[in-house]
Amino acid sequence: MAKIADIYYNTDPWSIIEEDFNPDYALVSESIFSLGNEYMGVRGYFDEGYSGDRLVGSYFNGVYESQKVEASSYKGMIDRTEFIVNSVDWLYLRIEIDGEILDLSESMFKDFRRELNMRTSVLSRSYIWVLKDGRELKLEFERFLSMKDAHYGGQGLTMTALNFTGGVLISAGLDFSNIHHMVGKNLWDCKEIYTGERMCSILGTTINTNQSVLSACYFEGSVFEDNLINEEDIVEDKKVLKRYSFNLKMEKPETFTRVIKNIKGDNPHELTSKSDYDNLKDESAKWWDEVWKASDIRIDGDELNQQGIRYCIFQMHQTYHGADKGTIIGAKGLTGEAYSGNTFWDTETYCLPFYIFNNVEAAKNLLNFRLITLPEAKDRAAALDCDGAFYPIATISGRECCSLWQHASLQLQASTAVAYGIRHYENVTMDEKFVFETGLPILIEVSRMLASRGAWNSDKTRYGYYGVMGPDEFQMMVNNNCYSNYMGKVTFEYTLDVLSRYQREDKDGYMSSMQGYNLSSNELDNWSKLAEHMYIPYDDETKLFEQHEGYFDLPHIDIDKIPIEDFPLYHHWSYDRIYRNDMIKQPDVLMMMLLYNRKFTR
Amino acid sequence: MAKIADIYYNTDPWSIIEEDFNPDYALVSESIFSLGNEYMGVRGYFDEGYSGDRLVGSYFNGVYESQKVEASSYKGMIDRTEFIVNSVDWLYLRIEIDGEILDLSESMFKDFRRELNMRTSVLSRSYIWVLKDGRELKLEFERFLSMKDAHYGGQGLTMTALNFTGGVLISAGLDFSNIHHMVGKNLWDCKEIYTGERMCSILGTTINTNQSVLSACYFEGSVFEDNLINEEDIVEDKKVLKRYSFNLKMEKPETFTRVIKNIKGDNPHELTSKSDYDNLKDESAKWWDEVWKASDIRIDGDELNQQGIRYCIFQMHQTYHGADKGTIIGAKGLTGEAYSGNTFWDTETYCLPFYIFNNVEAAKNLLNFRLITLPEAKDRAAALDCDGAFYPIATISGRECCSLWQHASLQLQASTAVAYGIRHYENVTMDEKFVFETGLPILIEVSRMLASRGAWNSDKTRYGYYGVMGPDEFQMMVNNNCYSNYMGKVTFEYTLDVLSRYQREDKDGYMSSMQGYNLSSNELDNWSKLAEHMYIPYDDETKLFEQHEGYFDLPHIDIDKIPIEDFPLYHHWSYDRIYRNDMIKQPDVLMMMLLYNRKFTR
Repeated sequence: MAKIADIYYNTDPWSIIEEDFNPDYALVSESIFSLGNEYMGVRGYFDEGYSGDRLVGSYFNGVYESQKVEASSYKGMIDRTEFIVNSVDWLYLRIEIDGEILDLSESMFKDFRRELNMRTSVLSRSYIWVLKDGRELKLEFERFLSMKDAHYGGQGLTMTALNFTGGVLISAGLDFSNIHHMVGKNLWDCKEIYTGERMCSILGTTINTNQSVLSACYFEGSVFEDNLINEEDIVEDKKVLKRYSFNLKMEKPETFTRVIKNIKGDNPHELTSKSDYDNLKDESAKWWDEVWKASDIRIDGDELNQQGIRYCIFQMHQTYHGADKGTIIGAKGLTGEAYSGNTFWDTETYCLPFYIFNNVEAAKNLLNFRLITLPEAKDRAAALDCDGAFYPIATISGRECCSLWQHASLQLQASTAVAYGIRHYENVTMDEKFVFETGLPILIEVSRMLASRGAWNSDKTRYGYYGVMGPDEFQMMVNNNCYSNYMGKVTFEYTLDVLSRYQREDKDGYMSSMQGYNLSSNELDNWSKLAEHMYIPYDDETKLFEQHEGYFDLPHIDIDKIPIEDFPLYHHWSYDRIYRNDMIKQPDVLMMMLLYNRKFTR
Repeated sequence: MAKIADIYYNTDPWSIIEEDFNPDYALVSESIFSLGNEYMGVRGYFDEGYSGDRLVGSYFNGVYESQKVEASSYKGMIDRTEFIVNSVDWLYLRIEIDGEILDLSESMFKDFRRELNMRTSVLSRSYIWVLKDGRELKLEFERFLSMKDAHYGGQGLTMTALNFTGGVLISAGLDFSNIHHMVGKNLWDCKEIYTGERMCSILGTTINTNQSVLSACYFEGSVFEDNLINEEDIVEDKKVLKRYSFNLKMEKPETFTRVIKNIKGDNPHELTSKSDYDNLKDESAKWWDEVWKASDIRIDGDELNQQGIRYCIFQMHQTYHGADKGTIIGAKGLTGEAYSGNTFWDTETYCLPFYIFNNVEAAKNLLNFRLITLPEAKDRAAALDCDGAFYPIATISGRECCSLWQHASLQLQASTAVAYGIRHYENVTMDEKFVFETGLPILIEVSRMLASRGAWNSDKTRYGYYGVMGPDEFQMMVNNNCYSNYMGKVTFEYTLDVLSRYQREDKDGYMSSMQGYNLSSNELDNWSKLAEHMYIPYDDETKLFEQHEGYFDLPHIDIDKIPIEDFPLYHHWSYDRIYRNDMIKQPDVLMMMLLYNRKFTR
């Protein structure tokens, strides 16, 4: 029943290597070989086009589109989602020889090799294209995203005519006509297209959200030196290309490179600076050198796990390193469209700890995003008839984007995770000042939500949360979920603790905060009382925490007896059937013990 | 907090009377003054047109359209709903004098009176139209639907020119261009339009479901005798009219009537028979005479409740009297578009008892509908990963049409209500034969569903239903709802009881049924065991049934403290908030005790 992991790529301590292209893995490889630099991300698709399975995905952190969802007349259900929007293909390149077009789905080729070098973050790929008449052209591609100046990226191509001399036609440029796969259509308007000598640029604007991306590219390389036969501009509705005809001499390698600059926003003045390809690449590699010196984890004697842990570290830095306020960590990073590029409570729970230990500025910026989006969380609380702030389950801009109400309305863990994140940050950094300034406004509003969303049981002896979905999403709507109640309790306690330290250390600041937030001592007393009476389902005899009230009496399911064809269950089981037994999907009580492990030492 | 009923209509033992038209009540009055004869229904809208609030609703039992709902990737969620479709306006009539068009929203009028006579089911309406120049035309409308031959209806108009002699222009005919209000568009194609002397007809076909309605009307009346000046045909895309110009003499009443014949289906041969207006009206009144002799309930000394109870009886017969197999009782009868004309478990629970006592054939036909749609209920069970038959919460054709999965997937009461209906039918009629033939196939499949949908608790001592919504829809997803468990138990017991009597009384029939349904004694033993171990939450000490496990410990809400502006709660409270306390929306334990009152006599 357990998923068995495929081992498709070579095991190597510093690289992900694919030898011999297998089209069955085309989409997976595009994801695995994605590059990102927080500002933008691009999937590992083939620059030269490919008529097989592909998702030409190019994303900018924070550039999103919105979509209406079927209106519901019920309060608290959202009517609009936001998703990171598939954007310009800035690697667009097509190669043609005497009318024969290169396409790895149709063409003959040999010696295919692809490598992502995690030390430098350069993705390279090479193979020999065997034309129908037997001519052979060796192609060596590479690409990278600059970590020094995140607007830049580079694309390199070295061509060697192995057994002939003759012409090659290259069309290269910028393509905004890409479709967003999840909605099946293109979502860009292109207003400005410009072409110049060995350069072109294009400005795209999203249709509903009116966000812009300005993309420009500059071509270089040895091939221009004395092999250029012809240069032509091709301008379409949402695409601009340069078409070059070059002459190749047998066995003489020729390079064709481009520097790209992408800018969120539409300020053409920012396009003037132009950087050198090799310089950009070197600078970026140096950035990675520093990161690896500080962040590497070595696992000697286990090359597979060595590769795995480095890939994780590599992805963390690629996706986010705190370069920009307002950028987020999407559930799939910048590698595809799944989960709509939205950020979840996974950010504070699983990602934030990495940055707390490796990159404090990044950690602060992640928490800052929640302060910036506090107004949206307050709006969301109001929509859910709560006081304070209810953080969204899934978001890009701060607004709730999860269209499943049972998740969006019943999961309190996004809000408590933010409080947890602040506490964890303080525990490690001892940075009390940041907590007073950035953490406190959040903590107060989350505590207010927690004090209004819960309820006292019928005889008013216990406080708890009713109608919630805990971390385990296979229990849809339960009462007194242990995790939710516990997180509520510790959030109240931590908020009160921060407030009391603030009062001690900065009486004036404290008093003005009390006034600013309209905080009364009654409200604080109430939080204290709720924390004290929070119901934590625990059996003294068995020493077991119960996941929620009644969990232990639920019908038991032996998951090893579920046929493997039934997985994933969401696709094969009636939706409600998933929720009627003791099967769990995510750790729940265990998660609580992990997060607050100091409290559960026995 | 309680709703206070308006008293807008006159109190009268046999009639609903409106004196002086109040536009604020226009839509309510259209509903109240609806007519129906099971086959078709028409709202009490103004024949002569009206530019104020109106819903020109004309419905045929079983004629529906379908609509896609936003696809869900989860199993068991429906992707299409079906709704009774607004159809031909067969009362279409416009009146014009010298370019001035009658419209009660714009015109001057006096002495307005509308009366629905429940003794005859004739709806009449009269007023005096005061033209801008002071001319007065008295108008007396009436309409009825035939109870003798349900295809027929009649419309009558008597015009009296009170203070002038002169011409009047009447456009009358059939209009399929009506919009269906819930979807905001017209849903008919019209292929055939025919006009003849003093008659016209039109055939409409629904766009998605391809169901047809053929409508014809024949004009009569004194006005044709020697006052006709001109006759003209007006044929539009979905509308056919006759335009008559008549001469009216001062103080001489003239009648203009029409007989209409509407036929579900598209067989033009059925149009040949034509009936006389007065004859049709008399026959229908006689039908009602008989019904009132048999079904009347007298409440002496309380005219308001006398009117109320008669209106209920009147509506029951109008909506359904078992004339056709395959027709249903929509939640709002044939009076409007709310609840999509779908039938709910209310049919067997609240309506069927009326017919069991008043009209056994109608009762049988209602149960027959569930036998006819057993295949769809089996499909639905499969979609919900259950064996047997899972009856839809809302349906016209037998397919589930409730797009709220939490209702459609979690409510077992539609299925148990059918079993209850069969049992109730047998209790009163002692008609064992019908139960063996029509009831048994249903009972077996419902029992199979009940045996697969439930589960044993963790230590396997109790059987029950997990993740259900009982009759009380303010508890969305609970375990061991008392009503659901109890209904499951008695359904098993009754099915086994019927089977054992069948075996005793018709051994051959029984044996062939066992084989036909692939029923083994193991399966029957299992049902018996499940019935025996069905968990009924009951406290021996307090002698209270608990609505569901944990209900008594839920946070208490004092409903008298909810501000009246918060109602209806579904519109003003966050959806999930409704489900987090002990407030109930419908009787649940009480319903169980009502249905099986012989078991709860103490």
